Amino acid sequence: MKTVTLIGAGRVATHLGKGLKSAGLNIAEVISKNGASARELATLLDANPIENWEDLSPTSDLYLVAVNDDAVAEVANSFPFNDCFIAHTSGSVPMNALEQASTRFGIFYPLQTFSKEKEVDLNKVPFCIEGNTEENAQALFQLAQRVSGNVNYINSEERKRLHLAAVFACNFSNHLYAIAEELLQEQGLTLDLLRPLLIETAAKAQQHAPKDVQTGPAVRDDKAVLASHLKQLEAKSDYQKLYNLLTKSIQDKHNEA
Amino acid sequence: MKTVTLIGAGRVATHLGKGLKSAGLNIAEVISKNGASARELATLLDANPIENWEDLSPTSDLYLVAVNDDAVAEVANSFPFNDCFIAHTSGSVPMNALEQASTRFGIFYPLQTFSKEKEVDLNKVPFCIEGNTEENAQALFQLAQRVSGNVNYINSEERKRLHLAAVFACNFSNHLYAIAEELLQEQGLTLDLLRPLLIETAAKAQQHAPKDVQTGPAVRDDKAVLASHLKQLEAKSDYQKLYNLLTKSIQDKHNEA
Repeated sequence: MKTVTLIGAGRVATHLGKGLKSAGLNIAEVISKNGASARELATLLDANPIENWEDLSPTSDLYLVAVNDDAVAEVANSFPFNDCFIAHTSGSVPMNALEQASTRFGIFYPLQTFSKEKEVDLNKVPFCIEGNTEENAQALFQLAQRVSGNVNYINSEERKRLHLAAVFACNFSNHLYAIAEELLQEQGLTLDLLRPLLIETAAKAQQHAPKDVQTGPAVRDDKAVLASHLKQLEAKSDYQKLYNLLTKSIQDKHNEA
Repeated sequence: MKTVTLIGAGRVATHLGKGLKSAGLNIAEVISKNGASARELATLLDANPIENWEDLSPTSDLYLVAVNDDAVAEVANSFPFNDCFIAHTSGSVPMNALEQASTRFGIFYPLQTFSKEKEVDLNKVPFCIEGNTEENAQALFQLAQRVSGNVNYINSEERKRLHLAAVFACNFSNHLYAIAEELLQEQGLTLDLLRPLLIETAAKAQQHAPKDVQTGPAVRDDKAVLASHLKQLEAKSDYQKLYNLLTKSIQDKHNEA
């Protein structure tokens, strides 16, 4: 595989585009409904920016769809080449969403959170690969191996579960960080006091089953602390509800062990 | 300050004892109701193990209480020297819990999660210091500076808030990791696929306000994905409830911006 076209110009397209280019791939074109984004990413990748499907060239080895989950179907409908190789990068869209796009399709899903501002080392990112044929799966697997040391065949059913687990472990955790920051700021404190703890908590889970290293008042059933925390949250009934539910969930999980 | 006695022989006592010893302090004695733990830690620190209050020596510069939060009051009651310097290490116990122990008291609270198995670099751990007099506060501040580059004066009211925020950011996040692992294992998958994502999520929060880097279906209000996730959780009503509450909380926070 030598030439890749990016469909989409957002965060995932940017990180994958840069990674593939660094690995020696030629990024031929970047197509996005948002012309400015297409131009910006195309400039970065030395590619051709495209705004309309009729201007897309059919000569790429792979068309990589990196758009919002709910825009994949629209891309599949609009894709103009019914025998070009197309793959999407989404954790939650089934592979057969690409059936109507082409006869050759698959999944090239990097299991990581990407932001515009922060560089990510793709080599450590787990890639989840699926193809509509074994040959197509292998081609995507080999492409992923050029940018990552952690490539896995994962079918659509497994991928759905992975995405759900990632929402719990990543999206929801980040929201808990945001709640912590709000609670600190109210008292004139900053998140900097907690930032080392965030890293350490995630680092600990690298080597342990999280369940085995659970700490805090919930797992100790420390009723005085639990009551004092709920009192602090008196004016914030939504956070109080969350605190109660998470505490109960920790205790249930601990008791089932 | 030259000599410290540890009251308690658990995780916090172990990490602090090792850190203080490395910084050149002499750990004179380790006292614990659990004689085996006291002996084990005392051996590690070249200290004298003690099981009963009447055997404790009154010559240490500081008596550092590292016991469970709800055991601090009992220690304060039992402490036999009413003019020796005593400090506790707990995030959630007010300073005046030590009033009845001695005339000289304070807080020496390392804001980090400690486990027996994993080494922690104390130098990056934020220490929260308080003293019943300015002089006592300063003495604890200077001691903390010998092991950490991140030492702060934090009063009891602020410390209560910090501890609450830490429960959200650390204890609750770890539980979400545990839920993720359970969901993966049910499908024959392992947490290894998500471990890089856990680290990246915490790393992103080192440089950003978590609220500004929130990703996922909740913040996008991606109704198809939200529905598919809830369907996967159909047989687990407690996790479904958590998913709904966290999703709503993310959306509320996003909309208030």
